Amino acid sequence: MINKMDKRKVNLLVAHGGGPTPVINSSLRGVIEEAALNGVKSLYGARFGIEGVLADEYYDLSDIDAQSLKCMSDTPASVLGSCRRKLCSNDVDVILEKFIANNVRYFFYNGGNDSMDTCNKIAKRAAQKGYDIRVIGIPKTIDNDLALTDHCPGFGSAAKYVAVSAGELMCDVRSLPIHISILEVMGRNAGWLTAAAAIARSSSDMLLYLPEVAFDMDKFIEDINSRYIKGEPLVIVASEGLKYADGKFIGDTGIVDGFGHTVPGGVADVLAQRIRRELTLKVRTEKPGLLGRSSIALRSSVDISEAYEAGAYAVRYALDGGTDRMIALVRLSDSPYKNGFEAVPLEKVAEVEKRFPSEWIDSSGTGVTDDFIKYVRPLIGETIDEYLVL
Amino acid sequence: MINKMDKRKVNLLVAHGGGPTPVINSSLRGVIEEAALNGVKSLYGARFGIEGVLADEYYDLSDIDAQSLKCMSDTPASVLGSCRRKLCSNDVDVILEKFIANNVRYFFYNGGNDSMDTCNKIAKRAAQKGYDIRVIGIPKTIDNDLALTDHCPGFGSAAKYVAVSAGELMCDVRSLPIHISILEVMGRNAGWLTAAAAIARSSSDMLLYLPEVAFDMDKFIEDINSRYIKGEPLVIVASEGLKYADGKFIGDTGIVDGFGHTVPGGVADVLAQRIRRELTLKVRTEKPGLLGRSSIALRSSVDISEAYEAGAYAVRYALDGGTDRMIALVRLSDSPYKNGFEAVPLEKVAEVEKRFPSEWIDSSGTGVTDDFIKYVRPLIGETIDEYLVL
Repeated sequence: MINKMDKRKVNLLVAHGGGPTPVINSSLRGVIEEAALNGVKSLYGARFGIEGVLADEYYDLSDIDAQSLKCMSDTPASVLGSCRRKLCSNDVDVILEKFIANNVRYFFYNGGNDSMDTCNKIAKRAAQKGYDIRVIGIPKTIDNDLALTDHCPGFGSAAKYVAVSAGELMCDVRSLPIHISILEVMGRNAGWLTAAAAIARSSSDMLLYLPEVAFDMDKFIEDINSRYIKGEPLVIVASEGLKYADGKFIGDTGIVDGFGHTVPGGVADVLAQRIRRELTLKVRTEKPGLLGRSSIALRSSVDISEAYEAGAYAVRYALDGGTDRMIALVRLSDSPYKNGFEAVPLEKVAEVEKRFPSEWIDSSGTGVTDDFIKYVRPLIGETIDEYLVL
Repeated sequence: MINKMDKRKVNLLVAHGGGPTPVINSSLRGVIEEAALNGVKSLYGARFGIEGVLADEYYDLSDIDAQSLKCMSDTPASVLGSCRRKLCSNDVDVILEKFIANNVRYFFYNGGNDSMDTCNKIAKRAAQKGYDIRVIGIPKTIDNDLALTDHCPGFGSAAKYVAVSAGELMCDVRSLPIHISILEVMGRNAGWLTAAAAIARSSSDMLLYLPEVAFDMDKFIEDINSRYIKGEPLVIVASEGLKYADGKFIGDTGIVDGFGHTVPGGVADVLAQRIRRELTLKVRTEKPGLLGRSSIALRSSVDISEAYEAGAYAVRYALDGGTDRMIALVRLSDSPYKNGFEAVPLEKVAEVEKRFPSEWIDSSGTGVTDDFIKYVRPLIGETIDEYLVL
C-alpha cells in the first residue's frame, strides 16, 4: 500500500463501492489490461473505495504481473476492498482535492446505485471547478437493480448460485418425506435474485416470495397448507427484503447501514417459526448469505466475460474523452444471446432502484412468467444440470 | 415404482438411511454397476429407505441405462429417497418377512450410525431365524463420525464445501472494513466439518468452535473482543451442535427427530446477537445448511471415487459370501494418498459416534493442529485455489 501517487504522471484511479460480487475483480482486471493496452503507465486502486481516497490509501497497480491478474479475477469479493460510505457534501470537495493533489485524471468507480450517486456528484463538482478529469461508473450489483442497463455484472453469477442452490435443495427435500425448506435469498428491495430460483423450478414444487409483492402472512400459511395436503416436498424461496403491506420488513434486524438503509434479515427463520406454530410441520431454513455473492465455482461464464468487458469499455470510453457516464449493458439479441455496451448519464442512474417488473410476476404471486426466464436464462451462462428422478 | 419383486429370482436390494450426501448416489451407482458386472440380474432400490421396505415401495434398477447411471451419480441428495425411522423390535421382523416374501438375498444399507444399527439388527435376526441373506452396511455421512473407518464417504465433499466457503467468506470479510461473519456448519455432535474450515485458514483470522469443546460464552466474547482491538477482519466458524458445559445446546430449536435426538439450530444467530449486544459490532451470519451437503460443484473427486468404490466393494464382499459387516475405508498412505477397504463387524459400528480427537484441537480451543490438516487434506481432492491479496 502507498499513500501518494507520482503526480508528475497522468494517473488513473479505480475504486470499488458497496457489496462485492464474484466478478467485480474481473471488471478490475478489464480496466487494468485495457489501460495497459492503451499505453496508460500509471494506475492505482483505492483501498476500501472512497474511504481509501479520503485516507490516502492506494495500491499501485501499474506493474502488476500477468499471473497476479489471472489470480485476481479468480479471487472472490473485492481485492481492493470496498465501502458503504454515504458522501456528505464536504467529502466531494476533499475527494477532488485529493484527485488534484495526485493528478488523478481518470476515475472509475465500480458499484451500485449509491456508488453511481457518488460518481455523479464527483463528476459534476469537477466540471463546476473546471478540473479536467474523466469520471466513469462501472455497474456492479448482484441485486440487478440499476436503471438504464439491461442487467448488471454480478447478477448473472449470483442468479446462477440461487438457481443451482434451489435445484440442489429440491433434490434434498425430495429425499426425505414431508420435508420443507426455506431458502433465504439476498436482495434488499428487488426480487431479481429470488426470481432466479425459477430457473430450477419444476412444476409446482417451489414457491417464490419477492419483495415487490406485499407480504401477507395469512396467504403465506394458506399457500403452504394447500401444498401440505398434497404431501409434496416443498422449497420456499424468500427474499431477505420481504415487507408487509405497511412497508415494515418481516425480518428486521434493527440494524441501519451507512446509507441509512434498514438491514433486513432472519426472514427464513420468521417464516419457519410461523409454519411450525400454525401447521406443526417440519421446516428447515438455509441462509447462504454472503456465500451467494462470493462463490467462484458457481460464477456464470457470461457474467465473468461481461464484467471484464464493462471495465475495458469504460477505459476506452474515458480515453476517448467521455465522462460523467455509467457503462450500461445493451441486449442485442436473446437467442443466440448477444450483448453490447453504451454510456448512459450518471444522474439518471444515481439512487434509482430498478425493481422486478410486476408483469413478470404470475397471478399466484409466488411464481414468475416465461418472459423472465427468457430474460435471465442467457445471463447464467452454462446449462443447469438435469438431475435424475426415478 | 413397483410394489413387489419377482420372487422367482435372487433379488438384491439397496436402501439409503439418514441425511443424504453429495456422493451417496455414487455409492448406489457403484453397487449397480458392480452387481451387473458380476451377473446379478435382479436389483431393486427401496423408496425412502426402510420406510419403503415396510410399505413395499421399490424402484426396479435392474435395467437402468448407462446415461441414467451417469446422471444418477451427478444428482444431489438421494435418488432413492431416505428416512430417519428408528426401528422398533417389531419392524425388524416385518422387514425380514418382506425380504423372505420378495426373495431378497442381498441387502445393502447405505447410511450412518443409526442405519448401521438397523443393518446390524436385521443381520442378527436373519441369522437367528436361519434366513440366508447377506446384509452389508455401506458407510455414508458428511459428519465423519462413524467408528472403525478412517473416514466416511460424503465427508470429503462436505469438508471441501466448508473449506471453500470459509475461504470465500474470508475474502468477502476482508473487502469491507470492520466486518465479522459467523458461518454455521452442520455436525450435531462431531466437529469434523467445522474443523475442515482450517484448510482455508490463514494465520489468525478465523476462529473455530467445535462441539467437542464445552462452549463458554464469556471466553467467546473475549476471543472476539481481543480480535476487534486489532481491527482485523474475522470469520467465526461455529458448529450447529455447540453445547454449554452442562450439555445444553446453545442453539436449541426445541425439535426432536425420529431417533429422539434434539435438533440444534440457530447457533450463528445466538452468537451474533450476543456479539452485537456485548460488543456493539457489526456481525453477519451465514447458514448454508442443507446446501453444504448437496453441492455438486464442490464435491471432492477423491470422495466421489471412494463412495463409488465402497459400493462396488460391498457387492463383491457379499457375493463372496460375507455378511453382517460394514465396509470401512483404510488409509494406506498419506502422501501420496492411498486408500483401501475392509469389512468390519456391524455391532462395533452401530450407534457409536467417533468424535473429533481432543489431541487435534490446539491449546486456544479455537483451532486445530497440523496433524488434522494432514489427515483431512487428501480427502477434499483438488487443490483449494490461492486468492490474490494485494
